[in-house]
Amino acid sequence: MFFASDNSGPAHPAVMQALADVNTGFAMPYGADDPMAAVTAELRRLFEAPEAAVYLVATGTAANSLSLATLTQPFETVFCSPVAHIHEDECNAPEFFTSGAKLTLVPGTDKMTPDSLRATVLKEETRGVHGPQRGAVSITQVTERGGVYTLDDLSALTDVAREYGLPVHMDGARFANALVKLNATPADMTWRLGVDILSFGATKNGCMGVEAVILFDPAKAWEFELRRKRAAHLFSKHRYLSAQMHAYLADDLWLTSARTANANAARLADGLERAGAQFMYPPQANIIFAEFPRATHQRLHDAGAVYYIWEGTLEGDDPDEMLAARLVCDWSVTHDNIDRFLSHF
Amino acid sequence: MFFASDNSGPAHPAVMQALADVNTGFAMPYGADDPMAAVTAELRRLFEAPEAAVYLVATGTAANSLSLATLTQPFETVFCSPVAHIHEDECNAPEFFTSGAKLTLVPGTDKMTPDSLRATVLKEETRGVHGPQRGAVSITQVTERGGVYTLDDLSALTDVAREYGLPVHMDGARFANALVKLNATPADMTWRLGVDILSFGATKNGCMGVEAVILFDPAKAWEFELRRKRAAHLFSKHRYLSAQMHAYLADDLWLTSARTANANAARLADGLERAGAQFMYPPQANIIFAEFPRATHQRLHDAGAVYYIWEGTLEGDDPDEMLAARLVCDWSVTHDNIDRFLSHF
Amino acid sequence: MFFASDNSGPAHPAVMQALADVNTGFAMPYGADDPMAAVTAELRRLFEAPEAAVYLVATGTAANSLSLATLTQPFETVFCSPVAHIHEDECNAPEFFTSGAKLTLVPGTDKMTPDSLRATVLKEETRGVHGPQRGAVSITQVTERGGVYTLDDLSALTDVAREYGLPVHMDGARFANALVKLNATPADMTWRLGVDILSFGATKNGCMGVEAVILFDPAKAWEFELRRKRAAHLFSKHRYLSAQMHAYLADDLWLTSARTANANAARLADGLERAGAQFMYPPQANIIFAEFPRATHQRLHDAGAVYYIWEGTLEGDDPDEMLAARLVCDWSVTHDNIDRFLSHF
Amino acid sequence: MFFASDNSGPAHPAVMQALADVNTGFAMPYGADDPMAAVTAELRRLFEAPEAAVYLVATGTAANSLSLATLTQPFETVFCSPVAHIHEDECNAPEFFTSGAKLTLVPGTDKMTPDSLRATVLKEETRGVHGPQRGAVSITQVTERGGVYTLDDLSALTDVAREYGLPVHMDGARFANALVKLNATPADMTWRLGVDILSFGATKNGCMGVEAVILFDPAKAWEFELRRKRAAHLFSKHRYLSAQMHAYLADDLWLTSARTANANAARLADGLERAGAQFMYPPQANIIFAEFPRATHQRLHDAGAVYYIWEGTLEGDDPDEMLAARLVCDWSVTHDNIDRFLSHF
Repeated sequence: MFFASDNSGPAHPAVMQALADVNTGFAMPYGADDPMAAVTAELRRLFEAPEAAVYLVATGTAANSLSLATLTQPFETVFCSPVAHIHEDECNAPEFFTSGAKLTLVPGTDKMTPDSLRATVLKEETRGVHGPQRGAVSITQVTERGGVYTLDDLSALTDVAREYGLPVHMDGARFANALVKLNATPADMTWRLGVDILSFGATKNGCMGVEAVILFDPAKAWEFELRRKRAAHLFSKHRYLSAQMHAYLADDLWLTSARTANANAARLADGLERAGAQFMYPPQANIIFAEFPRATHQRLHDAGAVYYIWEGTLEGDDPDEMLAARLVCDWSVTHDNIDRFLSHF
Repeated sequence: MFFASDNSGPAHPAVMQALADVNTGFAMPYGADDPMAAVTAELRRLFEAPEAAVYLVATGTAANSLSLATLTQPFETVFCSPVAHIHEDECNAPEFFTSGAKLTLVPGTDKMTPDSLRATVLKEETRGVHGPQRGAVSITQVTERGGVYTLDDLSALTDVAREYGLPVHMDGARFANALVKLNATPADMTWRLGVDILSFGATKNGCMGVEAVILFDPAKAWEFELRRKRAAHLFSKHRYLSAQMHAYLADDLWLTSARTANANAARLADGLERAGAQFMYPPQANIIFAEFPRATHQRLHDAGAVYYIWEGTLEGDDPDEMLAARLVCDWSVTHDNIDRFLSHF
Repeated sequence: MFFASDNSGPAHPAVMQALADVNTGFAMPYGADDPMAAVTAELRRLFEAPEAAVYLVATGTAANSLSLATLTQPFETVFCSPVAHIHEDECNAPEFFTSGAKLTLVPGTDKMTPDSLRATVLKEETRGVHGPQRGAVSITQVTERGGVYTLDDLSALTDVAREYGLPVHMDGARFANALVKLNATPADMTWRLGVDILSFGATKNGCMGVEAVILFDPAKAWEFELRRKRAAHLFSKHRYLSAQMHAYLADDLWLTSARTANANAARLADGLERAGAQFMYPPQANIIFAEFPRATHQRLHDAGAVYYIWEGTLEGDDPDEMLAARLVCDWSVTHDNIDRFLSHF
Repeated sequence: MFFASDNSGPAHPAVMQALADVNTGFAMPYGADDPMAAVTAELRRLFEAPEAAVYLVATGTAANSLSLATLTQPFETVFCSPVAHIHEDECNAPEFFTSGAKLTLVPGTDKMTPDSLRATVLKEETRGVHGPQRGAVSITQVTERGGVYTLDDLSALTDVAREYGLPVHMDGARFANALVKLNATPADMTWRLGVDILSFGATKNGCMGVEAVILFDPAKAWEFELRRKRAAHLFSKHRYLSAQMHAYLADDLWLTSARTANANAARLADGLERAGAQFMYPPQANIIFAEFPRATHQRLHDAGAVYYIWEGTLEGDDPDEMLAARLVCDWSVTHDNIDRFLSHF
């Protein structure tokens, strides 16, 4: 009963098989391997972006930080949600990779709204050389609180960015989970709306550790390559990144896995709702924030369930006090585990 | 006939098996996995360093740059060979990770000598606040030209460092190849001589992509962890790094593979010598720099041999002109390939 | 009628005289000049801090950024007010000088409260290696909105810092204005409360361009010197910084000028209040935020008054609409100018 | 008898008078002052560069580092002499301001030669993404060893830069001394040869502390302004920088002072030569490197002469041993002082 994160599950057997298959003889290093060529071709095809530049790194923080560094000057500021992973969970990596750019938080609790984004952008315009200059807008899809921006939501945000000439980064650590939720095409959820660079996550959805960065405009491709190397994120035995991503994209594994993860979360959410839990945010993909009594938490804990208590602590006298849980499902969670978890309510 | 680098061979079957074995169910992320605990214990045991802090990253440049950043202030300079990987092949990663420290090159062609190191250190002492302050000494073992410092060589260098109070980093991308060459113990080749932080390479010697960083003094362990995260080198699904390293250390695989790689290179060097090739540097581990005529290069090229022509180019009229080759063997090179290569001389 | 800022007035005649006096013959460069020795001695005496390290720079942003860089690691975050100069008006200089540390904004409109500071500090403690680590607290005295923290206010803030082991920086761009307002001693307003490093402003209070940085604990003095040089803020002809500061401290000029500036602002505030203006913040030193009708602004504008309209714009149809003005007085503002300004109400 | 440096003399009376003249009433801050407009116009006129962007900073290191940061990406390397001020005497400021670019030293003892520059540039081209990319060429005129590149020398260097598409920075801390030596026009010694950005020194030649940065192509002017602010080098009471520079340019003061300084050095060099001293470098502007016996040094020392002993130390038994001195003259050195100095030979 592990619901702590989708960063802790196993790699999909197809991914493991691809690693075994590619493990023969010598291969050109540093991204010149054959599977990488196939990955690039496949992502260009899937995104209907024949000119896009595609690179692989091993962590989501690397994908985000390198993307932001490519879009942002050190005297600029990046606009993001106050709960954005780039702000809260990357230990100043964006500040490091951008050589000291700032992150400006768009007030709100999770999703940015166009009004809040516009108001925040406007506030940054009045100080000339004294304040940081307005830089990229970074949007997380699926959000850190499990929300999914609709295409209209995204379009309204990218409209604001376009209005002020700001580039757009999408943190798609859970890109596939959002895509299948919206039943959209990759192109419709990204460059057609004005997304310039995408962190295309794979690790949380069945890989060992690989993320693609897609630059829809390849003008900065070489700069990206240099920044990746300079940040020590260029792999010599690169084929093992390529093979993972290749398997991830083959046979719709990425979409199938995301659908499974979302369905797992929906099954869990349904059970929680029936059991009377309260949702802090409407569950839309594979992450659930739900409140239920301490006594239930205690039972789950005693039964070995693993997840984050988001607000409050197990310690406390009142068994009826509501504590919030964050519960995440990946593709590998079993129905049996979900049902066992729910049986404690 | 691939002799371009030891960064291009396959992972050892035992490493692949370890990945398969660890790929079950959920595992705590970010280094809290069980195999990591085993790796730490094993490296402490092997290095006779029960207090050492041990961390894993996926690239050698990450290991080196994070190590240097932990040892060096931005207003300091790092002393290294003019052909050091950290200077020539990391696209300013050390400068990036240290927030702008300098690298001061110790004159020479490959190995640093204590006299040259001392003279260079002395030169940096005369400008007070105007010049960079003297920082870490970085030593590559095996060197970038295939040389192996003896324990006496290393001791003489670390004596200079100690004399001036400078910390010592060892770039051990090919640590095992040097160790088996010297028939030394890990402790004797590192902390007993005064090495403070070691980049303990595994990728080039049979892994997919994993390097350990060993801080013999754990005082800066937490700082290292923060720097690793900030640089986006902390893996969520960390068990796949741990599993590689665990297999690498088990059953002396690391030593066996290094012995095989060195023996392969020795077999190749013997053949080259008999064929009249000239060595630019005495081959001591698994890297050979040898000169032989263009015509031979051309025959090898036509036969599909892959390696770097280090000086000169295939294009040229004189079939007798000597061109230099860099030839590297890993554990996976076959005798058949070596012998086929030599058959073209 | 210039009330735009105290950064735009002339230097005091005594400062100019000191520059002329020191302008003879050669002087040792880089801070080894005689007047600097006198400045150090005098600031140590005034602050009752015989061990303090004292350095001069030419801009307030340099004083702040170098102070923060000396106190803060790049993987940490600095706590400050959302309207702090270091956040709003230094174009990412703190992020630059600290090599990418973050600034965490303590919710509020101007002055930090201990409760808000504690809550913000607590929020930063829960993410381990993923979030930035808690770093320095930076307090502006006089605040950017013209407020003056009482000694009790400051003590409550530094208590929170001490509770969590965080160092404290004071941005004292208008240090003297606060000191005379509180009728406190320099030691009581700084190190006795736990301030570690002070940006001691002089430019806004009668100098051409000089600020002192005072490190009450000299342990990091040499690091500060190196950071100052590395940031290009070490002056070769340093005597001209020293001479300014020396004159500023002599004969209580710094206190007299601050009293004059505060008295000027009080005279202006009294007149505004009598004229029915509304204060956005209670005027406590030499900065006033006041609202009055557009028609009055227009009359002032037509008469040549210079100041910032803080909220709203002159353009607009409604002559009765209230627009906010920021009005700043330095020591050089004349009563005549103040009275002329008020005559337009 | 002060010959230690031209960074230690007094400001010229005309500069002091200009400061006094400008010290009345309020002036717009941050470069919007009237004298700055005059400075820009005058430098554009003198350089025959009506589009050039002109900015003032207070230190030479700031001028150099901001210039290099504007020309250089962090994954690039700057080519310079091994004795360049930017390498030896700025405590890693260029590395800091460029966010971690490297400095690649062009072998030689002082002046770069086109052959050495080309060979060094070529060496940096072979490692693709692994090595730093080729960035700006930085040329010091007058050199750190007192040499003056002829226009042909400069042209040969900028030809190499142009051949490889590299931008050119000139460190003109002693620009005027070189100009009058060559009897060239400012345009001929800079942009007509391909210099992109010039650090136009004034501090060493009669000012208190001011240097201009001239961007002959204004495309990056706004970026420069932001970098200057971010580095804390934008002065609020900017008029005091402008006034110095304005006075420096007025009535050919800059040229007259440079001629005086050079003539002083020539008088000193003549005397040294007659006294049998050996020059380490041919004296060409206002800096002399000369060798003479320890006994003479001791007499000078006893008589109170101040200068750097460049090689060797006063301590030593052999009165005939030759020790090298660095002797610098500014405009304020008197003939009497020079002759008194020479009288000890």
